[in-house]
Amino acid sequence: MRNVSDVSKVRVVVENITPRVDCGRFPIKRTVGEKVLVEADAFTDGHDAVTVMLMYRHAASEQWHRSLMRSIGNDRWQGSFRVPSLGEYHYTISAWVDHFDTWRHGLLKKYEAGQDIELDLRQGAVLAAQIAARAPASDAQLLQDWIHSITDVTRDREDRVTLAQSQAIQELQQRYPDPAIVLRSEESLRVQVDRERARFSTWYEMFPRSTATTAGKHGTFADMERLLPYVASMGFDVLYLPPIHPIGRSERKGRNNVPEARPEEPGSPWAIGAAEGGHKAIHPELGTLEDFKHLIAEAGKHGIELALDIAFQATPDHPYVREHPEWFLKRPDGSIQYAENPPKKYQDIYPFHFESDAAEALAAELRSVIDYWIAQGILIFRVDNPHTKPFPFWEKLIGEVHQLRPEVIFLAEAFTRPKVMYRLAKLGFTQSYNYFPWRNTKRELIEYFTELGTAPVSDFFRANLWPNTPDILTEYLQFGGRGAFMVRLVLAATLGASYGIYGPAFELMEARPREPGSEEYLDSEKYEIRHWNRDDPASLRELIARVNRIRRENPPLQSDRGLKFHATDSDMLIAYSKTGESGADSVLVVVNLDPHNPQSGWLQLDLPTFGLPASGSYQVHDLLSGARFLWQGARNFVSLDPGRAPAHVFRIRRRVRSEKDFDYFM
Amino acid sequence: MRNVSDVSKVRVVVENITPRVDCGRFPIKRTVGEKVLVEADAFTDGHDAVTVMLMYRHAASEQWHRSLMRSIGNDRWQGSFRVPSLGEYHYTISAWVDHFDTWRHGLLKKYEAGQDIELDLRQGAVLAAQIAARAPASDAQLLQDWIHSITDVTRDREDRVTLAQSQAIQELQQRYPDPAIVLRSEESLRVQVDRERARFSTWYEMFPRSTATTAGKHGTFADMERLLPYVASMGFDVLYLPPIHPIGRSERKGRNNVPEARPEEPGSPWAIGAAEGGHKAIHPELGTLEDFKHLIAEAGKHGIELALDIAFQATPDHPYVREHPEWFLKRPDGSIQYAENPPKKYQDIYPFHFESDAAEALAAELRSVIDYWIAQGILIFRVDNPHTKPFPFWEKLIGEVHQLRPEVIFLAEAFTRPKVMYRLAKLGFTQSYNYFPWRNTKRELIEYFTELGTAPVSDFFRANLWPNTPDILTEYLQFGGRGAFMVRLVLAATLGASYGIYGPAFELMEARPREPGSEEYLDSEKYEIRHWNRDDPASLRELIARVNRIRRENPPLQSDRGLKFHATDSDMLIAYSKTGESGADSVLVVVNLDPHNPQSGWLQLDLPTFGLPASGSYQVHDLLSGARFLWQGARNFVSLDPGRAPAHVFRIRRRVRSEKDFDYFM
Repeated sequence: MRNVSDVSKVRVVVENITPRVDCGRFPIKRTVGEKVLVEADAFTDGHDAVTVMLMYRHAASEQWHRSLMRSIGNDRWQGSFRVPSLGEYHYTISAWVDHFDTWRHGLLKKYEAGQDIELDLRQGAVLAAQIAARAPASDAQLLQDWIHSITDVTRDREDRVTLAQSQAIQELQQRYPDPAIVLRSEESLRVQVDRERARFSTWYEMFPRSTATTAGKHGTFADMERLLPYVASMGFDVLYLPPIHPIGRSERKGRNNVPEARPEEPGSPWAIGAAEGGHKAIHPELGTLEDFKHLIAEAGKHGIELALDIAFQATPDHPYVREHPEWFLKRPDGSIQYAENPPKKYQDIYPFHFESDAAEALAAELRSVIDYWIAQGILIFRVDNPHTKPFPFWEKLIGEVHQLRPEVIFLAEAFTRPKVMYRLAKLGFTQSYNYFPWRNTKRELIEYFTELGTAPVSDFFRANLWPNTPDILTEYLQFGGRGAFMVRLVLAATLGASYGIYGPAFELMEARPREPGSEEYLDSEKYEIRHWNRDDPASLRELIARVNRIRRENPPLQSDRGLKFHATDSDMLIAYSKTGESGADSVLVVVNLDPHNPQSGWLQLDLPTFGLPASGSYQVHDLLSGARFLWQGARNFVSLDPGRAPAHVFRIRRRVRSEKDFDYFM
Repeated sequence: MRNVSDVSKVRVVVENITPRVDCGRFPIKRTVGEKVLVEADAFTDGHDAVTVMLMYRHAASEQWHRSLMRSIGNDRWQGSFRVPSLGEYHYTISAWVDHFDTWRHGLLKKYEAGQDIELDLRQGAVLAAQIAARAPASDAQLLQDWIHSITDVTRDREDRVTLAQSQAIQELQQRYPDPAIVLRSEESLRVQVDRERARFSTWYEMFPRSTATTAGKHGTFADMERLLPYVASMGFDVLYLPPIHPIGRSERKGRNNVPEARPEEPGSPWAIGAAEGGHKAIHPELGTLEDFKHLIAEAGKHGIELALDIAFQATPDHPYVREHPEWFLKRPDGSIQYAENPPKKYQDIYPFHFESDAAEALAAELRSVIDYWIAQGILIFRVDNPHTKPFPFWEKLIGEVHQLRPEVIFLAEAFTRPKVMYRLAKLGFTQSYNYFPWRNTKRELIEYFTELGTAPVSDFFRANLWPNTPDILTEYLQFGGRGAFMVRLVLAATLGASYGIYGPAFELMEARPREPGSEEYLDSEKYEIRHWNRDDPASLRELIARVNRIRRENPPLQSDRGLKFHATDSDMLIAYSKTGESGADSVLVVVNLDPHNPQSGWLQLDLPTFGLPASGSYQVHDLLSGARFLWQGARNFVSLDPGRAPAHVFRIRRRVRSEKDFDYFM
């Protein structure tokens, strides 16, 4: 027979803690000041009461904070805490069988049933004395006083029962549970707390080389500075630049990606590395490091933060190739293996060989690239194709950067299979590109954003929605005309707390593909310098500015939580709302997904989402057009003409019949 | 800057392994010979191929077996293994980036695109040489031969490409992956493998004291032996006896649970412990230990296994109270705390105090009770109210018993909240009572059995369905008459691979409650000796025998896997099928849930479940009535009269138009 010496006295069970990603392998993500709502199943054998305590602390502190969880039925408990500081928090659950609480509930029932409770009161005194023995002197004295009172047979029995039920004594005794029966859940779960911009950001992508005032001339950082007011006027707060490093000459691609560039062609900025330097150097035609730092500072004055592109790959001309050939894979003939996806070959790109014996030195060098740009003042990195580098490499790199600089934001540009995208988000990427460009129908949008909005995905994956990128000109935009651009703008800006556009191609509604069936732009800036007429009167810049102002002024649009789809009777009309944590204010968006034709139909709103009763009237205020409507109940009619405005962005105002309902009160 | 020395070369990721219970905290359950179907997400960065290997072993063996998993799309992989032996198995997943496989796929694409592949063939030779260096001599030689062949430029190129694609070389090279890049999933998951009866069992509960031939006389084990043919004739293979121990005299309950028994009243068998002994003793009026062992042996001759009741509680007369007062909780006046659920008091029961300082000795003693009865030949225990004893106590006890005797079956009688019931199943109980008695409508049944049949619940919770117990006479049975008993019998026996009845109350359709609104039997055997007319011509014993024979002859009914509900157009008609692992044979059950009136309606069968095409005819053979019907397509009519037979239990026979379709071929 085996030894039974280790039977635990811990009778409480804690299971199924949420939020939790992959059994706690990865942290959940929140931003500074947000609330973490924690739930768990907790119970014990028999009828005894349990106390369930949420424990949390910042990783930099040894001190756990405690927050009592409350039962919400079916053995499920709920609690919450806020994360006021950047970095990592830990949370777990502590629970125990609460004999004192069991006793006071039983006492009350017996008293109410008219039973003799004198012995029970003495039992309570015994329990309290055990607790007092674990308490510091002052609290022990409080417990002793209480013991004296409830066992004082000269006192009125009802008074003593009341004393036993007091909330104060319950809270006091809960501080000193018997350690032998306390369960500390084995799982210490983590929260990665990022700054607010990780949750709410408005991106603008621009090629620096296409910013010169003269057509054909190579733009500079100084030219970019001149355009900062333009970008700021549209309300963007992140300005993202494709790579600014020296561009390789070997195997350089020409206009529209033809295999061989003519001598005067500039090549792709993603072909990094030339005689002038690699990932820490600046392409000479853009300016100097000083110019770049000046641009960062000037942008800051406009409320704009610069984001750099990180593309960990090298051209054959990159200094790494000469200095560290061991970082690349060699073919049997001694040549370096270029990128391939058979039968396609990309001879202008040498991928790094992360399985080489020199992988540690390689990783250290790539880490130093990030550190270098942080030192220059960059705190946002848009990472090119992270899914073609090893997951452990990213987890380590981002983890270590965040240890020192938790404010750094990494956006993953991984247009790949869903589980790969999710893994990158789990291991540390702050935000992620995603399938939004190809989700154009009502059903696609509802399905995808329901997936993204449901735990655990919503706990680790922050979508950044891009209607277009230099690589992605969707068929919806190619064929949908102005209406399509407006629709996609409103969807991106209201479905996503973070979104971005690649401009000025977007606001100027550039829609010509390289060839039919392609999502590449004709005459793409990836391979040539473009000259844009930013003052084109047809530009969508005014609409963009209005949409971004609405985002700034309406907190529900600044978070991906609180998204709710509402029914409409038309497949062309999509309706959804966002409601803030407080529940007080909501934004309701209705979009006509047909970029060509007016569409109308009936909404069937879920009124409890807005805290509205099933009947009664309320005001909806279209923040795009300024129009106000008085609506009643769940069912309301909408009509949207893409020729004018393909969307309503309503603020829902509960109609309260008082003088405060007039505009001048607001 | 932190050290980057530990960047892993392991580029493959394995996530979301199923089956898995609570992140691997608990084992899944299977029975001997069953298949374990394992799935996992596995992928790497970039385009490289991965190889995913399912690893498994019996806990008693150090030797892992390997089984290649196959991709089923969206980065999900599937594999399986069988568990031929009792006890515990471990399984996990091993995966790696398969450079050789990547290479051979790329080679083929390049060859098909007409590219020069000579250098690629040399690259394959390099890879194979690295693998050969890890292989034993014979396999290394095979690899060397292969290298020689594919790099032999005098050979036809197509031949060499074909050699590169050969399945044999792929299987060979997969045996020797580079250990530096192999991921062994951190999770070693467990399977508890029980004997077949854990999955498929047919229980009959009987009070030994009500088996005497003379009314009013106390039955004995010898009387029970006389009834073994009766039990066997109905097809039961487990005979479960309420506690057989000496019954306490203090606070003994009388007939119909009145507070004080008259001197001649026998008391409740669950009031365990008297001067004659406790949990290892036998109530003298039943017979001796020798008589009991004789009963076990005789039952075995009838294919019947005895199950004992384990009720870990004591009356005030139990020897433990005198010998080990430290195993009970003392009240402040020195008396022992009796069971309470305020304001209710159960003075005849002393619960054990599992948090006492003597808890280890107590647990050891209770464990010795199980061991004692195992030594007498009992291998099935029905555990009374396990939810009122600590979870760690059961986990340790069952775990230790199973280490030595994995064939022991524990049935949890925990009629309590769902998460508590599930926890007991997770921690080791083989089978579980459940909410079946109170699931009587179509919707209730579908919802509940869908929950039980869905992972992870289906991986750890084996329901044992009881239409009645000595504590549970449901209102459905009280008011439904003969039809209700038939309905509940068929539901229990076909929804559940394990089920049981409390007889002869069930087959004699005992339906009188103690009082209106009560689920207690009037004149319950729990408090008195009953005399039953087992030969009553109205008895359901023939129907029970037929149903149990159908269960024995139709393997799909012997497992809870493969349950599928089918639509009907009547809320009174429920239809479901069970299909075996092979998919070859199915049983379709249609039940009229209205015990009073004939009901008819249309079925809408899911034909793919049966491997049947959307049109075409097939035969359904009612195993209850013997009738055969030729049905066509998904939509078929049924009509069921509870006065005759409230259910069809069809065997579905695919109609094949050949001479084998005639009966004499079967």
